[in-house]
Amino acid sequence: MKLGLFGYGVIGRGVYTLVGELDKSYNSCITKVFDLPIKKDLLGDKLVTDINDIINDDEIEAVVEVLGGHDLPYEVITRCLKKGKSVVTANKEVVSKHLEEFINLAHENNASFCFEASAGGGIPVIRPLIDNIKVNDVNDIYGILNGTTNYILTKMDEEGLSFDDALAQAKINGFAEANPTADLEGLDIVRKINILSSLAFRGNINNDDIYHYGITGINKEILENIKKLGYSLKYVASSKRDGNNCVIRVEPTMVKPTHPFASIKNEFNAVLFTGSTNGDLLFYGKGAGSIPTATAIVSDLVSILENRAYIGYKNERELVVNQNKETNYTYYIVDENNNGVFKENVKDEELLNSKFYARVL
Amino acid sequence: MKLGLFGYGVIGRGVYTLVGELDKSYNSCITKVFDLPIKKDLLGDKLVTDINDIINDDEIEAVVEVLGGHDLPYEVITRCLKKGKSVVTANKEVVSKHLEEFINLAHENNASFCFEASAGGGIPVIRPLIDNIKVNDVNDIYGILNGTTNYILTKMDEEGLSFDDALAQAKINGFAEANPTADLEGLDIVRKINILSSLAFRGNINNDDIYHYGITGINKEILENIKKLGYSLKYVASSKRDGNNCVIRVEPTMVKPTHPFASIKNEFNAVLFTGSTNGDLLFYGKGAGSIPTATAIVSDLVSILENRAYIGYKNERELVVNQNKETNYTYYIVDENNNGVFKENVKDEELLNSKFYARVL
Repeated sequence: MKLGLFGYGVIGRGVYTLVGELDKSYNSCITKVFDLPIKKDLLGDKLVTDINDIINDDEIEAVVEVLGGHDLPYEVITRCLKKGKSVVTANKEVVSKHLEEFINLAHENNASFCFEASAGGGIPVIRPLIDNIKVNDVNDIYGILNGTTNYILTKMDEEGLSFDDALAQAKINGFAEANPTADLEGLDIVRKINILSSLAFRGNINNDDIYHYGITGINKEILENIKKLGYSLKYVASSKRDGNNCVIRVEPTMVKPTHPFASIKNEFNAVLFTGSTNGDLLFYGKGAGSIPTATAIVSDLVSILENRAYIGYKNERELVVNQNKETNYTYYIVDENNNGVFKENVKDEELLNSKFYARVL
Repeated sequence: MKLGLFGYGVIGRGVYTLVGELDKSYNSCITKVFDLPIKKDLLGDKLVTDINDIINDDEIEAVVEVLGGHDLPYEVITRCLKKGKSVVTANKEVVSKHLEEFINLAHENNASFCFEASAGGGIPVIRPLIDNIKVNDVNDIYGILNGTTNYILTKMDEEGLSFDDALAQAKINGFAEANPTADLEGLDIVRKINILSSLAFRGNINNDDIYHYGITGINKEILENIKKLGYSLKYVASSKRDGNNCVIRVEPTMVKPTHPFASIKNEFNAVLFTGSTNGDLLFYGKGAGSIPTATAIVSDLVSILENRAYIGYKNERELVVNQNKETNYTYYIVDENNNGVFKENVKDEELLNSKFYARVL
């Protein structure tokens, strides 16, 4: 099968390498790569600088989109699907906004749409979730879904670094982007928990409806106090469905040492589902990094090459997100002097007015 | 699609129920159930007491085998595959002994052979592993693969029960069989780590070649000493490949509280893979119980109904198991007075002559 690749950045190069190492029996080959002219030296004749060169190439049956951003990826994905090409993407922004449209387009055009790498990085979580919800009602999801922030919290905890030093180290080690706002404020996690929740709950969710609170307010003293209380601090997305109502929140969260999330460190991610028939299921692995992400992408490609890519979900619910917050969550609310108190039944207004807060699991 | 079910015991009933709850669009129905005549009251006209009534029914396209044992399941599986029927089984004994034969038969007869429930119970682990090894060399596997023994060790640890009392409680709660020898001596785990290893390493492995040491030698005092040293005791299968050489061992194992296995409790199981591209991947969930197991079976069935059941592995290695034990594992070796010492480079003979021992991770 001839393949097209959109984007030859860090992840694109990983995909290119791993496709080259696939078993020969797949007879798969990336024939064209779209990127800027500057990549000519690396790619030679395979480089195309016009997306139409791939979209209109009828010999290319499947494409990988790792461009980043929104508008161009959205155009590439929709036009490729309409041409009957299967699409694999890691783009959480685009997937979280247009999942239903992509799946319907794939269906109408007898193509596959795969997005394993869009949530949980290298952890195989989308496919097991899609398989599971056919049999098992998943109504509770917890996730550590961002490698950058988990890395920062781990370094602060284990090495006593300040927030700024931990962030600097994350940048040096390639776990944080130059502008890490989307990570630190939870927007990256919002997209991922959206994808997981809309699959599990079978309905559309707007990123804007998901509550999120960043971790930038943390400091060494607050973290010390949390440790003294016997907790680890993690940045957790939680998603809960009751009928058509969901509560989906991204917020700093304290867990006991016995909680499975306590041992999730550095760039690792974890997703915990609670299902009606299966009980708790936890998946854990590298949530960031080019090769883990490329591995997830190429395992999607393999399912296309083997003609067994999964069929998407059916939207069957009109979900109402964070409208009826009837949660009796416990919170640890920190004042200006870094002192905290535990409180229940707290309004979001009070949380947002604190110096820092964490949910208590 | 018309389906046949072999075995209407605890798991078979779970499968029957869950198939009945599948989305109507699958148009799937269990038309015949093989079991003893005594099940007539429960099954009415669906009961058949001759396996040939299902095997020779050309309308039945897929079957589930949950009979237990070896000879009859082996006959059922091979004959159904030869008839072009897809087969789903949870039978770890049969799968661990005949996996390659089943997969080849499925291939030759254009059928699928699925065995998600045969290792890890309700945890989706076989499918992610099969997907992953297409891209990722998995050369290290660790697993807590037996719910009964993990339940016993948890109860001894958390409630201070004696081994016998914990075993009795496991029986009362349905986590241990009347004759629990296969669980306590590690034979059940041998079969599961065989299935996972032969998939990951792509070669055949004999159950007889896998080293195993039981947990019956544990007592409260030894467990107390292990806790005082800062470890949790788990019953762990480990499998490591280096070229064609593998070391596969099932033995009591001490883990630090920060190890992800430390938080795996009661009937939960966990599998940890280390891959060449992906790093550590951990899957965790209910490893025992009729409904979790039935969930895994029915999710296999769904992949058949959706015509996207996975394609098996290719055996490409002549594996040599436990012939060249070049491991510098550390062991904790307990004497008659329940006192232990840490030792490296220990011969198996010394381990087997101790009162009890545990590997140290």
